[in-house]
Amino acid sequence: MISEEVKKMLLQDEDGNIFVSSEDVANLNVNNNLNHALLVLSKVGYTSIPVLDNDSRIRGLISMPMIINAIMGLDAIKFDELETMRVEDVMDKNVPIIDATCDLEDILHHVIDHSYLCLVDNEGYFKGIVTRKEILSRVNHLVHELHNHYRLVENLPSKIN
Amino acid sequence: MISEEVKKMLLQDEDGNIFVSSEDVANLNVNNNLNHALLVLSKVGYTSIPVLDNDSRIRGLISMPMIINAIMGLDAIKFDELETMRVEDVMDKNVPIIDATCDLEDILHHVIDHSYLCLVDNEGYFKGIVTRKEILSRVNHLVHELHNHYRLVENLPSKIN
Repeated sequence: MISEEVKKMLLQDEDGNIFVSSEDVANLNVNNNLNHALLVLSKVGYTSIPVLDNDSRIRGLISMPMIINAIMGLDAIKFDELETMRVEDVMDKNVPIIDATCDLEDILHHVIDHSYLCLVDNEGYFKGIVTRKEILSRVNHLVHELHNHYRLVENLPSKIN
Repeated sequence: MISEEVKKMLLQDEDGNIFVSSEDVANLNVNNNLNHALLVLSKVGYTSIPVLDNDSRIRGLISMPMIINAIMGLDAIKFDELETMRVEDVMDKNVPIIDATCDLEDILHHVIDHSYLCLVDNEGYFKGIVTRKEILSRVNHLVHELHNHYRLVENLPSKIN
């Protein structure tokens, strides 16, 4: 459990929302070919980006290593397959998803293993992401400001009667 | 400033060192060609890895987007250039470096903008990395355990006499 005081300080919204809106997140469609995916990924400069279906539901994540691995032959990279293979064929379907009911504990736990978490509404539509960068920025604020707001008094071990 | 109590909890070494030793970090040499770099990056699955010179001094970082951008023509990706271009030609020389004198404040500040920081000794030799993942794992421990160790007593505004 995270104490209310710590939660309050981590969720303080001085510089905007903890989530980046889906409108500001680059994404790919399940039907895009890998050549297009490679171009988009190289342009945005992120490790991986969300993959959506035609209804804007989240279906997976795709990264450059996934693409290069998919076209790797025994002794050479088969670049001609970039045109024929689709994003859906190589994406990772194991997406770290959170929804509006998700609390800070879950977010902090999941960002240990993922660069970002995908926020969906209750019908599975992609609404945005929360990034490690944003979490770390808030943690930085917390650890610097905590002692300005609170005095830490050590808990004494309970007496055994 | 970070309080001593918070620092102590973040630096507690229950599950090992805060740094990953250089022996356990994949790296590339400045003279490797981009084809080799692409293979190594796809194998390790990380966004970027450190680039060392022949003396194991850190010289840069290289990522798949840097490689793909470097071989991007006007309307197609020129894959034949992977064999002729070297890692040194495309790597990012702006490496987030820390040394043994670096304190937790600097680390927490720098991991907001970088997936990992490179640790060097005082002669510039690469010794290891500290990752966002490790920092977030410790933060998770901190925010869950803080109230088990300390009672947070709100600071009252100072009286004006």
